[in-house]
Amino acid sequence: MIEYSLGKDEFKDWLVSEVEFSPDSLGKCESIMYLGNGYMGLRSVTEEPYLKETRNLLVSGTFNKAAKNEVTELPNLADITRLDIRVDGERFSLELGQTSSYLRQLNLKTAELTREVEWVSPKGKELRFYFRRFVSLDNLHLIGMKMEVEALNDPVQLSFDSGVNAQMSNSGAQHFLEGERRIYNRRFIELIQTTNQSNVDIAINTTHKLMLNDKELSLDPDMDMGRRKVWLTFNVSLEPGDVFTSEKITTIHTSRDKEFDKPGYEIGKLRDFAHNELKESALKGYDKLFDSHVRVWQEKVWEAYDFEVDSKHTFDQLAIRFALYHLTIMTPAHDDRMGIGAKALSGQGYKGHSFWDTEIFILPFFTYSNPQIARSLLTYRYRGLAGARKKAIENGYKGAMYPWEAAWPTDGEVTPAWGDVDIVTGEQTKIWSGLIEQHITSDIAFAIYQYYVVTNDQDFMDDYGYEMIFDTANFWASRLEWNDDNQEYHINDVIGPDEYKEHVNNNAYTNHMTYFNLRLAIQFYELLQTENPARFKQLNELLRLDPNYRDWKLKAENLYLPSPRKEDLIIPQDDTYLSLKQIDLSRYKNQKQVRGIYKDYNPEQINQLQVTKQADVLVLLYLLEQTFLNEDQRFSYEVKESNFNFYEPKTLHDSSLSLATHAILANDIEKGELAYSLFKEASEIDLGPSMQTSDDGVHAASIGGIWSAAVFGFAGVRISCNGRLKLNPCIPKHWNKMKFTIYWHGQPLFITITQETLSVVAVNKELVELEVFGKVYTCEDHMEIPISSANE
Amino acid sequence: MIEYSLGKDEFKDWLVSEVEFSPDSLGKCESIMYLGNGYMGLRSVTEEPYLKETRNLLVSGTFNKAAKNEVTELPNLADITRLDIRVDGERFSLELGQTSSYLRQLNLKTAELTREVEWVSPKGKELRFYFRRFVSLDNLHLIGMKMEVEALNDPVQLSFDSGVNAQMSNSGAQHFLEGERRIYNRRFIELIQTTNQSNVDIAINTTHKLMLNDKELSLDPDMDMGRRKVWLTFNVSLEPGDVFTSEKITTIHTSRDKEFDKPGYEIGKLRDFAHNELKESALKGYDKLFDSHVRVWQEKVWEAYDFEVDSKHTFDQLAIRFALYHLTIMTPAHDDRMGIGAKALSGQGYKGHSFWDTEIFILPFFTYSNPQIARSLLTYRYRGLAGARKKAIENGYKGAMYPWEAAWPTDGEVTPAWGDVDIVTGEQTKIWSGLIEQHITSDIAFAIYQYYVVTNDQDFMDDYGYEMIFDTANFWASRLEWNDDNQEYHINDVIGPDEYKEHVNNNAYTNHMTYFNLRLAIQFYELLQTENPARFKQLNELLRLDPNYRDWKLKAENLYLPSPRKEDLIIPQDDTYLSLKQIDLSRYKNQKQVRGIYKDYNPEQINQLQVTKQADVLVLLYLLEQTFLNEDQRFSYEVKESNFNFYEPKTLHDSSLSLATHAILANDIEKGELAYSLFKEASEIDLGPSMQTSDDGVHAASIGGIWSAAVFGFAGVRISCNGRLKLNPCIPKHWNKMKFTIYWHGQPLFITITQETLSVVAVNKELVELEVFGKVYTCEDHMEIPISSANE
Repeated sequence: MIEYSLGKDEFKDWLVSEVEFSPDSLGKCESIMYLGNGYMGLRSVTEEPYLKETRNLLVSGTFNKAAKNEVTELPNLADITRLDIRVDGERFSLELGQTSSYLRQLNLKTAELTREVEWVSPKGKELRFYFRRFVSLDNLHLIGMKMEVEALNDPVQLSFDSGVNAQMSNSGAQHFLEGERRIYNRRFIELIQTTNQSNVDIAINTTHKLMLNDKELSLDPDMDMGRRKVWLTFNVSLEPGDVFTSEKITTIHTSRDKEFDKPGYEIGKLRDFAHNELKESALKGYDKLFDSHVRVWQEKVWEAYDFEVDSKHTFDQLAIRFALYHLTIMTPAHDDRMGIGAKALSGQGYKGHSFWDTEIFILPFFTYSNPQIARSLLTYRYRGLAGARKKAIENGYKGAMYPWEAAWPTDGEVTPAWGDVDIVTGEQTKIWSGLIEQHITSDIAFAIYQYYVVTNDQDFMDDYGYEMIFDTANFWASRLEWNDDNQEYHINDVIGPDEYKEHVNNNAYTNHMTYFNLRLAIQFYELLQTENPARFKQLNELLRLDPNYRDWKLKAENLYLPSPRKEDLIIPQDDTYLSLKQIDLSRYKNQKQVRGIYKDYNPEQINQLQVTKQADVLVLLYLLEQTFLNEDQRFSYEVKESNFNFYEPKTLHDSSLSLATHAILANDIEKGELAYSLFKEASEIDLGPSMQTSDDGVHAASIGGIWSAAVFGFAGVRISCNGRLKLNPCIPKHWNKMKFTIYWHGQPLFITITQETLSVVAVNKELVELEVFGKVYTCEDHMEIPISSANE
Repeated sequence: MIEYSLGKDEFKDWLVSEVEFSPDSLGKCESIMYLGNGYMGLRSVTEEPYLKETRNLLVSGTFNKAAKNEVTELPNLADITRLDIRVDGERFSLELGQTSSYLRQLNLKTAELTREVEWVSPKGKELRFYFRRFVSLDNLHLIGMKMEVEALNDPVQLSFDSGVNAQMSNSGAQHFLEGERRIYNRRFIELIQTTNQSNVDIAINTTHKLMLNDKELSLDPDMDMGRRKVWLTFNVSLEPGDVFTSEKITTIHTSRDKEFDKPGYEIGKLRDFAHNELKESALKGYDKLFDSHVRVWQEKVWEAYDFEVDSKHTFDQLAIRFALYHLTIMTPAHDDRMGIGAKALSGQGYKGHSFWDTEIFILPFFTYSNPQIARSLLTYRYRGLAGARKKAIENGYKGAMYPWEAAWPTDGEVTPAWGDVDIVTGEQTKIWSGLIEQHITSDIAFAIYQYYVVTNDQDFMDDYGYEMIFDTANFWASRLEWNDDNQEYHINDVIGPDEYKEHVNNNAYTNHMTYFNLRLAIQFYELLQTENPARFKQLNELLRLDPNYRDWKLKAENLYLPSPRKEDLIIPQDDTYLSLKQIDLSRYKNQKQVRGIYKDYNPEQINQLQVTKQADVLVLLYLLEQTFLNEDQRFSYEVKESNFNFYEPKTLHDSSLSLATHAILANDIEKGELAYSLFKEASEIDLGPSMQTSDDGVHAASIGGIWSAAVFGFAGVRISCNGRLKLNPCIPKHWNKMKFTIYWHGQPLFITITQETLSVVAVNKELVELEVFGKVYTCEDHMEIPISSANE
């Protein structure tokens, strides 16, 4: 059971708490309380083992294809968290004996996981356990663990096994060769593992420091090696009142680290460096290492983003902090060869692959809040051009056709081929998205546009952005199909954002975003020609821009764009959607079970029903609102309203990407209460009380969506069609204040919104033009606008 | 806790019982109660999962090398035994709620595993569970499982997940590619898996039959597929008194099966055959399938071997039956391309590899009791000649140098290179046996000799035996080293049976057995030349016998054979053993912990101590007693006695091969009580009360040793130097009778020994000459000899 309001004083609205241990719902806290730093993610699995645990340690970018018929994925490293603890010979487990008090907490502020347990062993011995753990944001390679054990009443014999266990796998898929293991001086454990296809070496080093009542203790542990395992066994006798402490400091280094991934690398260098680094770190001890970590969190995250919500529901501020915490730990900000996985670094779901989730639901946060990281994430896509071009060729197209699922940049498409059971045939269902879910390509183009307008980062555009925009347009130009009957271009046989509909023609989202992608290329072509002829020349040679430009124009002008029907303003999701059979969806709408409808229908059958998995047309309405397309090409309030009312009841939100979009749209159409309840629902996807839905990992996009729903929704942040920052604030009735920082053209803007006032502080005192409810304001330094008068 | 005397009436001395569930000692019953049929072995893991379980299903001969730096091993197949059972939503587990009665039994007679549990769920619901399971000896591909659940007091909602789970691995090493999964008609589950190096396809088919109060029940289960998994979820409501039954019938077929492993094989054939076979079998139901299985056990095992012990301790008869049960299920009698693993088919220990254990400790049972199976096992070694020749060349020798560890016959040497931790260096210890533990080659020669003398199977010798004897002699002739100082041949740098001593010179066992191997080749050369000139000519051409024969003679005559020292009759184990440092061994002798001494000393240090892992010189004394070497070349009673008394106190019996040898030798030197206590100790290696030592699997050689200690020990069976059957019976004081069948030259002899009389029945009424206590008797039909008068 999750509690949200246990934080007091300094930690008010900072603590996510589990107040009752639930061995059947371990995945929940393992995922939502997971620790990380973008370099690695460590699921918050308990020290003592349980049957249903999923013990995962994932390091960004270490992709490996375990076998010829698998796709590449982030491998699950050797485990260092498990402790096999015995009290007078009895196994410490909260399923045994009696647990008299229990509290597990993730402190978002300090990014520390703690667990305090009072436990009575089956033989009746009472003990207090206090576990602490962090994954350092100061030293990205470091994991600190600490365990305090106090004998409360009786003398006890405590023993525990602790080491490194490389018997772990990804649900049975083994990525690692059995590697070298060694114990130095009965104290420093080293285990090397190497991926079996991508040849990434991993060096894991760990050591313990033991204390009895704060005095350092020297124990001579038993040493053991098993297959893929090495561990020490410690034994200590405790008298009543004795407090025993064990610190375990671990470091992870890999040959994929930038420092090693270069010519001349050899494993010996990694081994020596890693071993020495552990020795140095271990000298400092848990407390010092932890202090440095907390300092970095304060500076780089909490002070930098400074997002405050003054709400009557404490949950709201916590939800925003939860989002910022996760957005920080999921993102490999240290290395622009790496992207964000759909389940972040919190589990094996979606194999660590990057989807459109990043560009549409996560990247906006960084674009507005930490442009350097946004740049790194887009550079990852630039590095992925090679894979995108390969995919285009494989599919008979030109240009850059981005993979639906991306891993290492040069891998190209890595979507698996087969999914869950088809309840009609009893076979596995075929996954089509890697072949025909193609909107990802224009989603990336959109993200580049958004980044460029918000940051004005011309270097990025010159070095990377233009090339990507042009070559994605090249893909689309080759992809369109001429329809002779209608004398226009169509896009047939695709999957749109609504993945319930496979092999549809003219998905509205896909067609419109394609149009945007082509128009963007046209605009940039014209711009670059005049603004940077040298770079234009280079790209012209590389990508044959001149003839392509004419092609883009021709295709854009003649591309069929599904538009609102006259009678009801509904934009048809695709050519057939509006004529499909309708069924009663109430049992799936209320069920909140992922893929619930697949228990009754197989994909072919669902294809024939008027039911939508997730926002599709609605995402389009939301995105177009942020482009240079002018008001005529965007959609009106009435179109938004009609389509929201039409599609929402048909949408099962069977994807975590859906609710935040609806929350934003609800704000756009001035349904404030609905908007807040959708914001809350979106926030609860991981943070909420449902104990099963985060098992495979957190929902990275929905976490980005929490921020988006607040900033794009309540604060109404948009880009105007002429490239100004727009703000249409409308915070929930029970919020007194919302305060956050966004960056505009490199300048931080402190924005504060109350029920009455919008205030903006331009920190660098650089002039910025703002549109608020359609009116243009010029802010030089600080400005305050009464909302009621603005919104008239 | 294991009980031995719970069998009553028909099942008196047939039941091994566990009367208390012990979640910390699961390995014990998983191993010693494992089910099998030589085709496959299924560890007797509980249906409901526990943390410390080892869920293994191994199929003979399906060897695979999981990764480039691993050695080939038997892969752990997908699991079909696990059931995730819930009672009103609560997990069924004997660690939760209350277990009011518990009994797990292996019925040796019916080869069925049963478990009856009365359990009160944490919510207080009382249920009776009755689980049954067998691995058919009638249809080698079939596993039957049955579960009965009775609601004792309250209505309950019962649910369980059951299917096929291919997430299993060998301690983290994954042998299988993720394969196809399918559910036919919501009922028949099929999962295919293929080994990643040896390309063995495995087809697993399973289906359920459900009954409520004996009436067939049709439930519509939920269907699910996960990574490497497919399963059904059943739900049923029980009223008090309702008995719900689920039968799960499973078949295993592989492309290594003789029927498929031939040109023209394709996976479709295997899939169709396996699927249809399951359907047919499932129609019969558990009870009918089980009846057929029991019938085959009765005919092929219990009636065929007919081994009776009338003892005041019921344990003795049970131990013999336990041995016969395991000797049956561990042996791939169906396929002469397969050998017996050191841990049988009961676990991953020693990777399914065959050692000298087979020839010296297991094969004698089959040679005397079921010569056809002995022939199959020796044919496996014949098929291994290619690997043995390859190994000889790799090591710079000639002829056939048999691998210390053998897997698939053509694999050659498969001993792993690295072992457990070296407590001094902290590194893994190097395993030398694959290179320098060479006596296996003469052990195989010895086994062929023994088989030939006992069975008189001339066809085997002509087709296989001579070639193996000659080519093993060729190896030894190339292996010997001339020592100029002593003007004799030495064998330097070996490991003898005592594996504590690495890199020793002139290990007595190795040198004497080499001598025997050479002498055997010489004798057979001379014999074959006259008896079968055609075959002689063939082999002469193939193996250049004529020049080699001269070489064998030269080498045999000049080979140094360590002999009893004049002063104390001690045969030095090797050149340095007698001068090594002695330490107090009492803590290791009493400790009964495997590899206990390695906790205090590393291999280099142990090499310098006068301590022996297992019978070494003593095995030699026992084996020579069964050869054609004449009395002068064998060793006298006094030598045996002196060496027994000298070596036994220095021997830690840190190998399961040791105790049975000592038991036999103790009989030879007329220490009857010691012999019995060693027999009992040997029997208890797996069957005894120690709950941890069988975790990795049963000790196949020690199980062969139980039979050997009885037949070679108490009955004193040997081969005389002129090839007669010798019997020097001396049964333990508390035994009234010992009755067993052995085959001599193809004729079954019923042998009955009491305290007073030895009686022999020659079943086919073919004349047989026997030596009893040195006197020769001729038995035509039936004879009875008073023991006291005979042994004067």
